[in-house]
Amino acid sequence: MEMYDLMVIGSGPGGYVAAERAGALGKRVLLVEKDQFGGVCTNRGCIPTKSLLNSAKQYRHAQEGERFGVKAEGVTFSLADAMAWKEETIKTLRSGIEYLMKANKVTVVFGEAKVLDAHHIQVGETTYEGSYLILATGSSPFVPPIPGSKLEHVLTSDQILTLTEIPSSLVVIGGGVIGIEFASFFSMIGTKVTVIEMMSEILPMMDAEFAKLMRRELKGVDFHLGCKVEEITAEEVRYTDAKGEKQAVPASLVLMSVGRKPNTQGLEQLGLDIDRRGVVVNDRMQTNLSTVYAIGDVNGRSLLAHSASRMAEVAVANIFGNKQMRMRYHAIPWAVYGNPESAGAGMTESEAEKLGIPVRSQTVQMRANGRFLAEHGKKAAGLVKVICHRDTQTIVGIHLLGPYSSEMIWGASALIEAELRVQDVKEIVFPHPSVSELIKDACFALDHTL
Amino acid sequence: MEMYDLMVIGSGPGGYVAAERAGALGKRVLLVEKDQFGGVCTNRGCIPTKSLLNSAKQYRHAQEGERFGVKAEGVTFSLADAMAWKEETIKTLRSGIEYLMKANKVTVVFGEAKVLDAHHIQVGETTYEGSYLILATGSSPFVPPIPGSKLEHVLTSDQILTLTEIPSSLVVIGGGVIGIEFASFFSMIGTKVTVIEMMSEILPMMDAEFAKLMRRELKGVDFHLGCKVEEITAEEVRYTDAKGEKQAVPASLVLMSVGRKPNTQGLEQLGLDIDRRGVVVNDRMQTNLSTVYAIGDVNGRSLLAHSASRMAEVAVANIFGNKQMRMRYHAIPWAVYGNPESAGAGMTESEAEKLGIPVRSQTVQMRANGRFLAEHGKKAAGLVKVICHRDTQTIVGIHLLGPYSSEMIWGASALIEAELRVQDVKEIVFPHPSVSELIKDACFALDHTL
Repeated sequence: MEMYDLMVIGSGPGGYVAAERAGALGKRVLLVEKDQFGGVCTNRGCIPTKSLLNSAKQYRHAQEGERFGVKAEGVTFSLADAMAWKEETIKTLRSGIEYLMKANKVTVVFGEAKVLDAHHIQVGETTYEGSYLILATGSSPFVPPIPGSKLEHVLTSDQILTLTEIPSSLVVIGGGVIGIEFASFFSMIGTKVTVIEMMSEILPMMDAEFAKLMRRELKGVDFHLGCKVEEITAEEVRYTDAKGEKQAVPASLVLMSVGRKPNTQGLEQLGLDIDRRGVVVNDRMQTNLSTVYAIGDVNGRSLLAHSASRMAEVAVANIFGNKQMRMRYHAIPWAVYGNPESAGAGMTESEAEKLGIPVRSQTVQMRANGRFLAEHGKKAAGLVKVICHRDTQTIVGIHLLGPYSSEMIWGASALIEAELRVQDVKEIVFPHPSVSELIKDACFALDHTL
Repeated sequence: MEMYDLMVIGSGPGGYVAAERAGALGKRVLLVEKDQFGGVCTNRGCIPTKSLLNSAKQYRHAQEGERFGVKAEGVTFSLADAMAWKEETIKTLRSGIEYLMKANKVTVVFGEAKVLDAHHIQVGETTYEGSYLILATGSSPFVPPIPGSKLEHVLTSDQILTLTEIPSSLVVIGGGVIGIEFASFFSMIGTKVTVIEMMSEILPMMDAEFAKLMRRELKGVDFHLGCKVEEITAEEVRYTDAKGEKQAVPASLVLMSVGRKPNTQGLEQLGLDIDRRGVVVNDRMQTNLSTVYAIGDVNGRSLLAHSASRMAEVAVANIFGNKQMRMRYHAIPWAVYGNPESAGAGMTESEAEKLGIPVRSQTVQMRANGRFLAEHGKKAAGLVKVICHRDTQTIVGIHLLGPYSSEMIWGASALIEAELRVQDVKEIVFPHPSVSELIKDACFALDHTL
């Protein structure tokens, strides 16, 4: 039996990055995948949704180009073709992961892993032995026990990605990132969309002012906030509204996107600490078993693909030598890729308040920006907010709502990681014309001295 | 006669920012503009070209959406409508500058300024007096004395922005940023475009590998490099090619974009040092006259709108108190907004070599990236290059060619200004999926340790 330096279970953005990084260090690595390379992110999450949202944005461009000088007739959208393009994207990315595993000499085994103990796992009839184990088993959609939630037209985010016909109406239960991205997609392609959210606002990680604008900008979508879904029938979704009154909304299709649960099944006999969020880890991604690490959704600390990848790097660094490396959560960006886009890094004001950190903030309107005006006009809306520590002027949060948000936000994470102050950002030269200039504008609004 | 703290000549991105920042400090500011608010950038440069390029991109989206599921018939492009939208954008931005001047209590005078001495300028019949003077008079297209360059169909970038009919063919003389952006625009809307460039490569600030790919990606455009234009006739442009042979290319329209010259006329009697590039300044933007500053194109140090704005801040800071502020050029980003986009910040390898700085670099292909694949497919091309100091691993240059380049690059300027190292960037979490992740990938390619 070959002895591996590292065994990794799950080949999503946590697992495959762990295998790749450890392989690049010259370690003998085993990667076990029960389904296909790439996990939820590649196959049923980040990638397919972004592919579909891009198709929908192209559709809107073709429909709305007249003011820019572009006329098009008979513009139609084929969901089947958009799904086919999405599948092609996924296949290419899976091949990319396969190539990376080969390039880094990772042994890949397909099949369901059974964890025997901290150093042994079984796949099919074969047992594998390793010095270290990284659990990267991910998460699955959580379906709450609402009457009717098992009806055929009630789908999770996994299932809705296989539709080939545009539904006439869709009720989205849960206004988190997944719910809002699908709401944006289906409303763009002509479905009548309603979002029902239990909390008083959608997108909990988002600044309240931004979430409100996001709802307003998702023009085709009806929102019912503070509402509890009571029952789903073949024709409608019944809920209790914020005033306690019974309501119903018709739905030919229902998306259940209330949350995700960690995939901890099969790990029971290991003796791991598991809490409500998932496998308990320290900031090195180490579990209560010193040679077992857990990264990505299965530990429930930050349900984002890029968090999983970073956790992979932290785990591998700690396992193979760099014990100083710690997972830092304070500058991890998030993005919502609907129309409009939104992204953020660092704290919101309400988070700062909860942590007792004194902050100041400034919000600027995107319509003050040259590129935004050229591409969207003066009636379009968008916001940029910069939040700094009240005493040190260190940047602690940047929030964006509008075009390019998802591609601008990495710089915000860099600023926060580097602990730059408002004054430092004011001295950075931003390219003109670009929407990114608004970040500098917000910094000047915080402090107009030179 | 009112005594101003500061007089500014020119209301482009240099002048209006100087007036705004000084006004915000509570200073009495006079701003003189001979034409309209916004200078070349707003009226005949950055903004109109980006508006037109956006229109052309929408046109391409409408034409090429089929693989994404979007079909459109009878797609047409109206240059007149695109120009009208561009004019609306410009008007809105001019109003924005007007508003900023009012908000910051800047006195605005329209008319041609005659500089009497370092403290007195005359506009029409009125003489104004001020403690400090900032020259922000910009630049104009340079038309070389080539036979035929004054023919009616030979236009500068100013004039080409008033076309309302799509030309059948266009010869662009000069493959700098202005030439390439117009080449990209006109080729996207169906004009047969040829670029004739005297140097051996287009876009001199761009990495050689990137410039080559840019030419390949500008699919509808013919390039003739190392060629000297000899004569323009009503039917064709005649040139000597790189082998010394006489050639000609037919042209219904010619764009002359070989360079720009500083607007120093009317400044002669001041006694300023003026060199080949323009008004000589130190790194505080101060001329040889201690109370006279020159910013933006007129000093010729960096012909970019955002450089002008930063120079404005440096000049105003030095005039009104912060004598530590210096202009730094090493991290100023540039962007080319054609299809594809490109952007860079910091050094290229050939610049590093000239400066004797030992560097290492890694280039990664955009087609390895999830978002890029989802939006462009595996046959599309794009590059990201990261250059670091060979010994310290400090990032000294980042170069991008592909979608979102212009909105991602600000983070590169931030990294370079903050003197982050490769290792630091590897610890920044980039959002997934985003094209920006390739910057991190390039850093891991430079150093795969954790």
